[in-house]
Amino acid sequence: MSQTPSPDPLELSREKSRDDYSFDGLTGWQKYRVLRPGRGMYHDVKRRLPYYPSDITDALTYRVIASTIRMYFVNLLPAIAFTLDMYRRTGEFYGINEALFSSALAAMVFSILGAQPLTIVGITGLIGLFNYTIYDIVVIYDASVYPQVMAWTGIWAAIFHWMVSFWNLCDYMRYVTDFSSQSFGMYVGIIYIIKGVEELVNEFTYGSRAGFLGCLIAMLYFGTIYGLEKLGGSTVFKPWFRGILADYAYVIGTLFWVGFSHIPGTLKDTDLSYVPVVRAFHPTQPRSWLIDFWNLDATWVFVSLPFGFLVMLLFYYDHNVSSLTAQARQYPLKKPGGFHWDFFLLGCTTFVAGLLGLQLPNGLVPQAPVHTDSLTVYETELKVISTEEGEGAEIRRPIVRAVAVVEQRLSHFLMGLAIIGTMTGPLLTVLHTMPAAVFAGVFFVVGWGAIESNGMLEKLIFLMSEDRFIQRDEPLLTIQKRKIWMWIGIQAVGVAVTVAISQTIAAIGFPVLITALIPLRTAVLPKIFSRKELQVMDDLTANSETVLASLGGAPTLPENIRADEYGLERRYSESRRGVSRQRSGSLH
Amino acid sequence: MSQTPSPDPLELSREKSRDDYSFDGLTGWQKYRVLRPGRGMYHDVKRRLPYYPSDITDALTYRVIASTIRMYFVNLLPAIAFTLDMYRRTGEFYGINEALFSSALAAMVFSILGAQPLTIVGITGLIGLFNYTIYDIVVIYDASVYPQVMAWTGIWAAIFHWMVSFWNLCDYMRYVTDFSSQSFGMYVGIIYIIKGVEELVNEFTYGSRAGFLGCLIAMLYFGTIYGLEKLGGSTVFKPWFRGILADYAYVIGTLFWVGFSHIPGTLKDTDLSYVPVVRAFHPTQPRSWLIDFWNLDATWVFVSLPFGFLVMLLFYYDHNVSSLTAQARQYPLKKPGGFHWDFFLLGCTTFVAGLLGLQLPNGLVPQAPVHTDSLTVYETELKVISTEEGEGAEIRRPIVRAVAVVEQRLSHFLMGLAIIGTMTGPLLTVLHTMPAAVFAGVFFVVGWGAIESNGMLEKLIFLMSEDRFIQRDEPLLTIQKRKIWMWIGIQAVGVAVTVAISQTIAAIGFPVLITALIPLRTAVLPKIFSRKELQVMDDLTANSETVLASLGGAPTLPENIRADEYGLERRYSESRRGVSRQRSGSLH
Repeated sequence: MSQTPSPDPLELSREKSRDDYSFDGLTGWQKYRVLRPGRGMYHDVKRRLPYYPSDITDALTYRVIASTIRMYFVNLLPAIAFTLDMYRRTGEFYGINEALFSSALAAMVFSILGAQPLTIVGITGLIGLFNYTIYDIVVIYDASVYPQVMAWTGIWAAIFHWMVSFWNLCDYMRYVTDFSSQSFGMYVGIIYIIKGVEELVNEFTYGSRAGFLGCLIAMLYFGTIYGLEKLGGSTVFKPWFRGILADYAYVIGTLFWVGFSHIPGTLKDTDLSYVPVVRAFHPTQPRSWLIDFWNLDATWVFVSLPFGFLVMLLFYYDHNVSSLTAQARQYPLKKPGGFHWDFFLLGCTTFVAGLLGLQLPNGLVPQAPVHTDSLTVYETELKVISTEEGEGAEIRRPIVRAVAVVEQRLSHFLMGLAIIGTMTGPLLTVLHTMPAAVFAGVFFVVGWGAIESNGMLEKLIFLMSEDRFIQRDEPLLTIQKRKIWMWIGIQAVGVAVTVAISQTIAAIGFPVLITALIPLRTAVLPKIFSRKELQVMDDLTANSETVLASLGGAPTLPENIRADEYGLERRYSESRRGVSRQRSGSLH
Repeated sequence: MSQTPSPDPLELSREKSRDDYSFDGLTGWQKYRVLRPGRGMYHDVKRRLPYYPSDITDALTYRVIASTIRMYFVNLLPAIAFTLDMYRRTGEFYGINEALFSSALAAMVFSILGAQPLTIVGITGLIGLFNYTIYDIVVIYDASVYPQVMAWTGIWAAIFHWMVSFWNLCDYMRYVTDFSSQSFGMYVGIIYIIKGVEELVNEFTYGSRAGFLGCLIAMLYFGTIYGLEKLGGSTVFKPWFRGILADYAYVIGTLFWVGFSHIPGTLKDTDLSYVPVVRAFHPTQPRSWLIDFWNLDATWVFVSLPFGFLVMLLFYYDHNVSSLTAQARQYPLKKPGGFHWDFFLLGCTTFVAGLLGLQLPNGLVPQAPVHTDSLTVYETELKVISTEEGEGAEIRRPIVRAVAVVEQRLSHFLMGLAIIGTMTGPLLTVLHTMPAAVFAGVFFVVGWGAIESNGMLEKLIFLMSEDRFIQRDEPLLTIQKRKIWMWIGIQAVGVAVTVAISQTIAAIGFPVLITALIPLRTAVLPKIFSRKELQVMDDLTANSETVLASLGGAPTLPENIRADEYGLERRYSESRRGVSRQRSGSLH
């Protein structure tokens, strides 16, 4: 499985172009981002374009096949899961055909044109939350205008996207730290778990027999995927076999439990609900694909404006964070990304999806790093640490190293083709055989993945553990426990408020809360926490050099710590255990 | 929780009396065990009697309360679980009232008169297997004689028990090694899991709705107990809190999931099956307690003789192994036991239980060590091992030490009283609220406990693991992998054959197979495996000095290894991690 990364003849030009894009240190009118529209996009394209040929030639390796299959499942299963929820809660406006169309559109655009083709774009739970909250609002007045309102929301959102990308405003993403991105990850995880439970509750509307069987399948599905992925990360079996388990956990689990639900007899006779499908390539509702957005009262057009702004705010955070985590420092990436250009593209897909009445796609937060992970060549190294117990009693620690990443466009593109294939009649019929309960299991896997590996939980376990068994060089020991409690306490309040609001009709306001965590972190927290405390507990989410190149260079936060001096805790853990393989759903 | 063990003023006399009982090295007629009947029993009583007052005075400590509650659940829940199975499969002859009566009888006799009151005696799955296999045989001819046949089986079994105990034949238990006791533990674990599945399958006879809910409750019950016990063995939380979790896992889990099944609405409306009860203190069938054993054809009386012999053979192995594991070397026991005397008592309870038509009680293999464990004062010590990584990076390893055991009779006695209390009307009504699905969960917890900690599985994981991550001083590395495969292969064949036979009408023959593993080990295996291999992989099951005192001293096996030179593997593991807390169900 060894693989030489493509040589980098353009190293020099990249170095140069990175130096080219920054607003730091400029004076006069030059320092105002909005006065130099398109500068970020121009540099993004200029920086990335030279790599385009290698994005295709680098792709001829087995990892691309494994990655395509894994991402097809990891992208499609949650998309369908969220669509089941949206379908019920938007008067059956958004269905599977829209979900597939939207996912395929996003995959085609971003795999061919994206500056960073590693960032998978698709349907998230948050856009689902958005769509049905707007439905809840619209339905109070007149449900029939919902398609047009959503079209206008998409149009406005697209316009705001283009403004943000032309005005180089993605630069502010460099101020995002783990404080807010972990809170966001926890929020997303909790929402996923809630969606899973709701899916199972819905199963009971088909009778308690279906409900109980649904719960059973969801739990066993969760156990299967979770167990296979754990096994994949253990030291049991040969490395190649473990690799297969980790790569194909979703394939194995999904095939098995879908098949299980069709075993003739008691299981088959139970009225489980299945994925609802309509005629291939047709909208779920009897309508043409293009929404007649011109038939809408001016009042509603303007009501859609704040909706569009909020969508942009959500995507600004959600898409860019997902792109950041797909390019996190733990992956030895050689090729640069481009945040401004990708956000412009996202505006385009938002525009098209809005006009066609599709779910608006954007970067998938918990799944984004899975794509990079699936393309990463890992090697489990043996680190022998001799102890005072003498020869033979050395600690033999497995250290997982990410050796190289197969950076290319083909896996993303092939996954898109597979989704287009899924839109055809025969494969739609296959989709229809999948019980909704399996998707509840998907929610649990992805949601729990985001929670289990979350820094908030890690700190909590540290605080709850018996002190004497913690190694003395653990960085968290250098700061007061009270301060750690306070840190995760503030995070928890942020998460709790956002989760709570998501259950109400005010849910569309949640992007404001999430983005508000960034200024809270930069402006307020340095006054409460010392430099040292921030250094241990926090870390820049945009922490790799290739990433910061597109964002105008490393940020300067009030506490005045150099970008590479954050994250003592994370780096301590990595030096011990190596990087952790990215299971689907885990944010860090 | 510190606790000073009672001082041992009788140390000297014990030393003396241990020397007194042995047949090794004797010559002439003196060396024949059967020619000196009752010698073992005499020494057992003589050895133990001086400790009787301290068995009561030592009991005034909190551990006895925790132990009583834990054992009440760990003894009663599986007993009821097996009875549900027996009830269905013996024409509803054996019911809950019989199970409670039998358990109470055994608890009273062994807590008051037993030489080793730590050994809990009750209803096992194997006697259930026995009872319904005999039913299957009898029913071919005439179902109505079943009670009398079982009474005679009990009578014959009692007679054989008394012969074994008077003839000092329990001595041969010292030849039992982990080879056979681990195979037996694995066999028992598998039978338990099968019983759990059968219990759930039976739930489907009440409709698939009840079946699915039953599966759900069983899985969640399993997860609850397993999770709580794992948490109890971790380093999270304060030690006293972890202790509570471990002590009361069954109480918490059982109360919660029984309550869950009664939540009004969908859950309550589901037709789960509950523990069937009849009038308090009355036999399940309309009969008097005393079986009219005198009304039986002489043919059947003699047919019952081999049944009785097989029961004795089963109990010979099962009861004595359970007693051995309750007194395993890992527990710092000060007071001696007495195998001959206890087996005599077991004959008496077998006799009485046979006449009254109760399930014959005997030592509970997977649960036996749980009683000792619940009375053990553990301390989790910190072992700091410095490494080459320098100061602060020392390995901080938790080592669990068993500091002392509260050796007394009161917990066993109080548990017996609690069982008698459960026989009354009001508490029978409480029992009736328990869904059978919870008992399927009990089967899974106890069965999986016996499998998870089994040496066979440990060796298998060793064989499957990547070699380079195994510490070099691991004793299994000193022998050929091929030989380890062969060792667990032979064990696996033994287990597979016994499990297979248990599913047929020849099931009553399984004690022969199990006891045949002992001569197989002593006579055949030393020819296949080298001294070194036996030393690493095998260990005496009777491995503490207080135990061997009653069995006539340490055995001499053909490979000629000293008793304390076996078990290199086990001792290696203990030196690393300390003893493992005995979760219910784990045999070693």
